[in-house]
Amino acid sequence: MLHYDWKEEKNLTMLTDFYELTMSNGYFRNGMGNKIAVFDMFFRRIPDGGGFAICAGLEQLIEYLKHLHFSEEDINYFRSKKIFDEGFLDYLANFEFKCDVWAMKEGSPMFPNEPIVVVRGPMIQAQLVETMVLLTINFQSLIATKANRMVRAAQGHPISEFGSRRAQGYDGAVLGARAAYIGGCTSTACVLADRIYGIPAVGTMAHSWVQVYDSEYEAFAEYAKMYPDNCVLLVDTYNVLKSGIPNAIKVFNEVVLPTGNRPKGIRIDSGDISYLSKKARKMLDDAGFPDVKIMASNSLDEYIIRELYLQDAKVDMFGIGERLITSKSDPVFGGVYKLVAVQHPDGSYQPKIKVSETLEKIINPHFKMVYRFFSKDTGKAMADYVTVHDEKVEVDDTHPITIFDPIATWKRKTFDNVEVRPMLIPIFQNGKCVYESPSIHDIRKFCLEQVDLLWDEVKRFENPHRYYVDLSEKLWNIKNRMLAEINGEG
Amino acid sequence: MLHYDWKEEKNLTMLTDFYELTMSNGYFRNGMGNKIAVFDMFFRRIPDGGGFAICAGLEQLIEYLKHLHFSEEDINYFRSKKIFDEGFLDYLANFEFKCDVWAMKEGSPMFPNEPIVVVRGPMIQAQLVETMVLLTINFQSLIATKANRMVRAAQGHPISEFGSRRAQGYDGAVLGARAAYIGGCTSTACVLADRIYGIPAVGTMAHSWVQVYDSEYEAFAEYAKMYPDNCVLLVDTYNVLKSGIPNAIKVFNEVVLPTGNRPKGIRIDSGDISYLSKKARKMLDDAGFPDVKIMASNSLDEYIIRELYLQDAKVDMFGIGERLITSKSDPVFGGVYKLVAVQHPDGSYQPKIKVSETLEKIINPHFKMVYRFFSKDTGKAMADYVTVHDEKVEVDDTHPITIFDPIATWKRKTFDNVEVRPMLIPIFQNGKCVYESPSIHDIRKFCLEQVDLLWDEVKRFENPHRYYVDLSEKLWNIKNRMLAEINGEG
Repeated sequence: MLHYDWKEEKNLTMLTDFYELTMSNGYFRNGMGNKIAVFDMFFRRIPDGGGFAICAGLEQLIEYLKHLHFSEEDINYFRSKKIFDEGFLDYLANFEFKCDVWAMKEGSPMFPNEPIVVVRGPMIQAQLVETMVLLTINFQSLIATKANRMVRAAQGHPISEFGSRRAQGYDGAVLGARAAYIGGCTSTACVLADRIYGIPAVGTMAHSWVQVYDSEYEAFAEYAKMYPDNCVLLVDTYNVLKSGIPNAIKVFNEVVLPTGNRPKGIRIDSGDISYLSKKARKMLDDAGFPDVKIMASNSLDEYIIRELYLQDAKVDMFGIGERLITSKSDPVFGGVYKLVAVQHPDGSYQPKIKVSETLEKIINPHFKMVYRFFSKDTGKAMADYVTVHDEKVEVDDTHPITIFDPIATWKRKTFDNVEVRPMLIPIFQNGKCVYESPSIHDIRKFCLEQVDLLWDEVKRFENPHRYYVDLSEKLWNIKNRMLAEINGEG
Repeated sequence: MLHYDWKEEKNLTMLTDFYELTMSNGYFRNGMGNKIAVFDMFFRRIPDGGGFAICAGLEQLIEYLKHLHFSEEDINYFRSKKIFDEGFLDYLANFEFKCDVWAMKEGSPMFPNEPIVVVRGPMIQAQLVETMVLLTINFQSLIATKANRMVRAAQGHPISEFGSRRAQGYDGAVLGARAAYIGGCTSTACVLADRIYGIPAVGTMAHSWVQVYDSEYEAFAEYAKMYPDNCVLLVDTYNVLKSGIPNAIKVFNEVVLPTGNRPKGIRIDSGDISYLSKKARKMLDDAGFPDVKIMASNSLDEYIIRELYLQDAKVDMFGIGERLITSKSDPVFGGVYKLVAVQHPDGSYQPKIKVSETLEKIINPHFKMVYRFFSKDTGKAMADYVTVHDEKVEVDDTHPITIFDPIATWKRKTFDNVEVRPMLIPIFQNGKCVYESPSIHDIRKFCLEQVDLLWDEVKRFENPHRYYVDLSEKLWNIKNRMLAEINGEG
């Protein structure tokens, strides 16, 4: 049986960058393999210049981490490279995951420069999972973020994800459909996404259905006879206004109504959707079908959807393909995974930093936690607060908290009337999974609720308000001391 | 055991759009399921405004087609939708692939509006495979095309594919690495791509290696001790010119040379690559290491590589991540799959067309073949020639051939001294695979050779010469007659 063309023994453990192995071999050889290290995954830039991103992919990351193991063939492969110690290969052959992992829940809005996944554990292990942590979270977060932008632009009109054929690979299609659903899409065209994840799959006809019959009328009539209770007709194979809609109306009257059903809709897949939808709406209304929906599906994205409604287009639902499934206008989610601390034998942590020539590539050092403040008056998310891992964060009348911008430190804001929620949830403890992913439907619901708790100013497409992500004073002092030291050394 | 998180029984057969099933059920029900249909895959636009694209993904398409089958669970899933005929579900349960498939060889340069895959067979079957034909060929062609652009910009300097962490899903990473290799990359960072496809995997160290030691010098020295014969040091964790390169030189002298090896290289992953590489080159040369290579790996693409060499940057090799693995500047390969003919009981074909409101969406009708003309003088590819499937194409002194532009029909060109090669190779006959994919190394070699046979004018990045893809007179007449008929009807 074919699974995805990979032979049985090739599991995702081997989906890693080669340097993770050369480094791990090195850590092993010089006795640093079991040194406890802390890595953060975080990102620096929100796709499309948006005000926030949506976290997704945790369920797949958990599956990967649960099943980490190297087969005998994998070990033989490494041995054939003639650079790895036999002791190290033994370690891999008997690999047992021992890390602690914290992560933001799927569906959470997230912001630049705060940890979204934290991995603490033996240096070799925490290093080895880098590629898959990034690949898994980056991709689904990219698509969930893009989908949520489109969903917001559509103002409550449903969006179906139609992109499998233009996806970047097979799980680009399937996990992309999953992520799009998390971001707020209502369905997918992808059967496998329904089979595996229970994302409702929908679909009616392609142009080939219309072409294969001798006339458009006949094609519509045959379809309507077959599916009288879900009759959505694709009207742009020949000419939308001159033949597609007139034929659809004829078939609605002559075939659908006599069955006692109401026709469901028409779909327009080319041409000027704004113009055609308005004309189509009038033709359908005049023919007694004001309840028949108009679906549009021609290279759409959030900008075009917004424009359509500004022009009063009469579109009731959308099918969106390539621009959603690849996040075409900004197809990379640039999450990175950086060493932020190592543990001393006494249990204390030594924070680590990376400076680099590129200013934005400076990282926030240390083993950290993230908290989100919600206003007790409005319920809205006010700011995220990044602390050293063991700081207590309590805020109330008697413990107000002042946060300040990590760059423009004179910008300060004091909160007292806020609810504090930890954003990084324990996922693995000592290699054991301690978290159960919610159902995909609950994740989607959580996402839409959490996005509702953001201010409109943060949700704008153009020049959104920068949501506050601030460092605790303790963390800020540590970071600045380290930078000063490196500068002094430089 | 985990394979990619999909349970055993979920093979790629179910990676299809739901409408393929609603339509197929319809074809089955009204007795058209076994009508022989011909579908073309073709594309309309070359990514990045290039002059040609590279075909890739056929090997995976073959694997998919060979293993097409529906499991009992798949059938139960369909049954649960309560819209499919039991007879149709029986048909699926006993599915046996019976189509003929022709395709361009992997690595072939290909052009808009010519068929690159042709599927002929029972309507239900030829319809059902649409999504996977497109998904498989679109993605790998996208990445092979992008990789080839970068490879040409690099003027012979090797490019390693580094993008797994930013790929759009797991096989986005693995099959992306495969496609990048076909396009001319020399290696990948992805271990799994090496394991499965034999793409050479390479890698040395990340910033974490440098950070985890107390000093950069110590980190470099430890690495050099471990891998003295493949010592490539990442020099931008703190400061490239002030600490990274001086520490590297020190370690080359103190650790590498005493082992009798020469150091291999340094890698710069941030900052201004042009400036830093020139400074680095001078520092290395002055220190007696003119043979040490400089590798660059910071958000590169073909445009930046070209600029670097225009500025005389001293980069010997490249590691390219996100802009290659997602084809960031143009992340969609827009291949489509259209019904072009149906067969009558007498064996003759009825060509089919689709017009649509959008002019570019008009298709070339009929069951077709494609030939490429190579000049016997220069060996160069002169034009592609698209014919009705059963036209004989012989060209020599006594049979010159005149081709003409399908839109600007007054543009004509006559050839006599050309070699004619068929571009569409038989892949399946009556459902049986009759083609064996070459090794990945041979595909890569074929690709580079075939690209060499294109004129430089076609290979330009900006405003490339449009390569001729012309219709035979017979095909052109059929198309125009069909368009005139539809217009007459409209």
